[in-house]
Amino acid sequence: MVTANDPKLKSWVEVPKESDFPIQNLPFGIFKTKYLTPVAGVAIGNYVLDLVYLHENGYLDGLGLPPGIFNQKFLNDFFTLGRMKIREVRERISELLRHDNDELQGDAAGREIALVPMDEVQMLMPVKISNYSDFYSSEEHATNVGSMFRDPKNALLPNWKHLPVAYHGRASSIVVSGTAIHRPKGQIKYPDQEFPAFAPTRKLDFELEVGFITCGETRLGQSIHTAQAEDYIAGFVLFNDWSARDIQQWEYVPLGPFLSKNFGSTISPWIVTLDAMEPFRAQGPEQLPHVLPYLAFEGKKNFDIVLEVLLQSEKTEQTTVCRSNFKYMYWNVSQQLAHHTVNGCNIQVCDLYASGTISGPSPGSYGSLLELTWNGQKPLTLPDGSERTFIEDGDTITMHGYAKKDGVRIGFGECKGKILPPIQG
Amino acid sequence: MVTANDPKLKSWVEVPKESDFPIQNLPFGIFKTKYLTPVAGVAIGNYVLDLVYLHENGYLDGLGLPPGIFNQKFLNDFFTLGRMKIREVRERISELLRHDNDELQGDAAGREIALVPMDEVQMLMPVKISNYSDFYSSEEHATNVGSMFRDPKNALLPNWKHLPVAYHGRASSIVVSGTAIHRPKGQIKYPDQEFPAFAPTRKLDFELEVGFITCGETRLGQSIHTAQAEDYIAGFVLFNDWSARDIQQWEYVPLGPFLSKNFGSTISPWIVTLDAMEPFRAQGPEQLPHVLPYLAFEGKKNFDIVLEVLLQSEKTEQTTVCRSNFKYMYWNVSQQLAHHTVNGCNIQVCDLYASGTISGPSPGSYGSLLELTWNGQKPLTLPDGSERTFIEDGDTITMHGYAKKDGVRIGFGECKGKILPPIQG
Repeated sequence: MVTANDPKLKSWVEVPKESDFPIQNLPFGIFKTKYLTPVAGVAIGNYVLDLVYLHENGYLDGLGLPPGIFNQKFLNDFFTLGRMKIREVRERISELLRHDNDELQGDAAGREIALVPMDEVQMLMPVKISNYSDFYSSEEHATNVGSMFRDPKNALLPNWKHLPVAYHGRASSIVVSGTAIHRPKGQIKYPDQEFPAFAPTRKLDFELEVGFITCGETRLGQSIHTAQAEDYIAGFVLFNDWSARDIQQWEYVPLGPFLSKNFGSTISPWIVTLDAMEPFRAQGPEQLPHVLPYLAFEGKKNFDIVLEVLLQSEKTEQTTVCRSNFKYMYWNVSQQLAHHTVNGCNIQVCDLYASGTISGPSPGSYGSLLELTWNGQKPLTLPDGSERTFIEDGDTITMHGYAKKDGVRIGFGECKGKILPPIQG
Repeated sequence: MVTANDPKLKSWVEVPKESDFPIQNLPFGIFKTKYLTPVAGVAIGNYVLDLVYLHENGYLDGLGLPPGIFNQKFLNDFFTLGRMKIREVRERISELLRHDNDELQGDAAGREIALVPMDEVQMLMPVKISNYSDFYSSEEHATNVGSMFRDPKNALLPNWKHLPVAYHGRASSIVVSGTAIHRPKGQIKYPDQEFPAFAPTRKLDFELEVGFITCGETRLGQSIHTAQAEDYIAGFVLFNDWSARDIQQWEYVPLGPFLSKNFGSTISPWIVTLDAMEPFRAQGPEQLPHVLPYLAFEGKKNFDIVLEVLLQSEKTEQTTVCRSNFKYMYWNVSQQLAHHTVNGCNIQVCDLYASGTISGPSPGSYGSLLELTWNGQKPLTLPDGSERTFIEDGDTITMHGYAKKDGVRIGFGECKGKILPPIQG
């Protein structure tokens, strides 16, 4: 067991009861303040711990960290040091923050500088994403989509249970939580028209996903076994793969979704380490038919992470529109990485691999409005009595995620984005 | 007219008659030698002109270039300076190389250092590719594929003539000409089997493409007009989008090709500037039905570039397997960039946008073995009488491209790759 995960640990930094960031979490991110340029930090309670301060003042001595490793706009160079180094740093920070450790606690002036109140920071993109692939690994989601657009009796395509279907996405347009997105325009083919029109999407949707960030690289030609896959994973983020369903429907044959997705995707700013998720391992669904040997795995490779999506319009209070769980994934992250590299495709440090929409078995657990409203046929009712089929201008979508066990709650922070009207012109 | 393109220009550097690199070309690349770390260079005849030497010795003074701009592993920082700066540098190099200019010519010692014989250099990846998208813009190719796999009477899907279909590809596995590629393994569903098998591909193919590299960036939400699109384009490369057809057929529904493509793609090392291509503008095919206003354009936006693919097995001499032309493209590069950004998707410096397979109207002009052998039904005959349906281990595929007019021949160099047996294990 990783020491930093011990449920009995307590920090001298006050951590509110329902905080996402107890001492057992310690996720990494990039932040700035009015006075500080972007640097790396770790979340603890309502504070961000400034890693540059710790590093420059000897608190991380002995870990063999290169000078300036945290004084950067992105975590990429840090993650290049690999999974073991990330673990060592997290363990050391855990030690420094324990109630019975006096090193930083006893340094009143240093403590004041090192702990920055969260309400004074702006969180930035934690990594510069090298490559981004999006899977399609929730059986319920694939079944729902297949039922709506193809055939309810043969909703899953023949390949779906044999391989984790995925496609390449656009890295440049991934933004950090809090970034507003303009409603995209594009070609839409209305059923009653002969030719497509150019117009703002009428079917703007969210997709509730979890992504993982890599901290290792492979050579072209090299494959990763399922047993080693987790060595390449730094941690997880929440991911909203905004989608324009009407643009998607017209453009996606035969090469897959393109402009319907690449106008923007949102990630949560804190990378929750795979180490912090250790206590929350879960058994995934049984896989039948049996998978090919390169996709076989041992042990628990799913993770029990409660996920929820909230919608706030400009007129009403925030309301929960769905509640799902990362453990529902049919294909786990180790299988995803093994599949992605089985042909020799090389991975790089700070690649992002997203799960695809995570839907659960019940209608309230569907991870997109497409499914929740069954392509607009069953509108949701908001607290003020108004209805929603898809996202309207001014709506804010917020995703939360947390894992809970033995009195410990490890949260992901927010993955939030507001939709603005289309840009004119 | 750009002065550097004048057909009457002659260089004091000897340029063989059929060279790809006369003074009217001057493409940019990254090279190294036994004695030099990777730096930027320009091709002239059988030499590479060392830009670091020119820059450090005052030959590029007055252009406002940042220190060290060419002393780098990639051209990215140079291309960040934009289209006009690339033009100025090319114009200045053209001036330095003219037969009547004595600045470098008259500096015997400097000349010796600045001009490195091509057979002493290794060409490297010219840019670190930020994002890579692949279009599907040849009508003949899309028609051939649609005829083979769907319905010859409705070979083109309904969206094809309304928008330049494209998908996101994998940037990490793009390699420079000369890099060998191992035959990829993956899931293949044979028609007589109930379940897929895991095996090396039996249908390994090339795809003859041309790609363009960007030298500008846009903000998320910003769109590029067709009239401005070329301002964002530094130049062109040849591109071989290696494809495993059997893996592709099983995996590609519903999200598009993935492992069948991302095991490797090859680009030629020299970026031939858009400026150098100016004299070779051509009219594209008539577009009917009329395109939506955001895809409308004025002037000649296609380019007359002869393309050819050669196959060399380990047993026979090299033979030409197809001859096509970039001018056949239905959708031009300006339309591609306008479409890609019409939803606000942001482009970055050193993105790569590839054309998709470029097939012409006659069978000998098809840009892939899939089409040339009609999915293996019509094998090609090699010089020794042996047959080819798809690529075999030990085969080398080489692509060439050149534009020719008024006695000037602008070539692209080689885009070459050898296929090695699958990696064991």
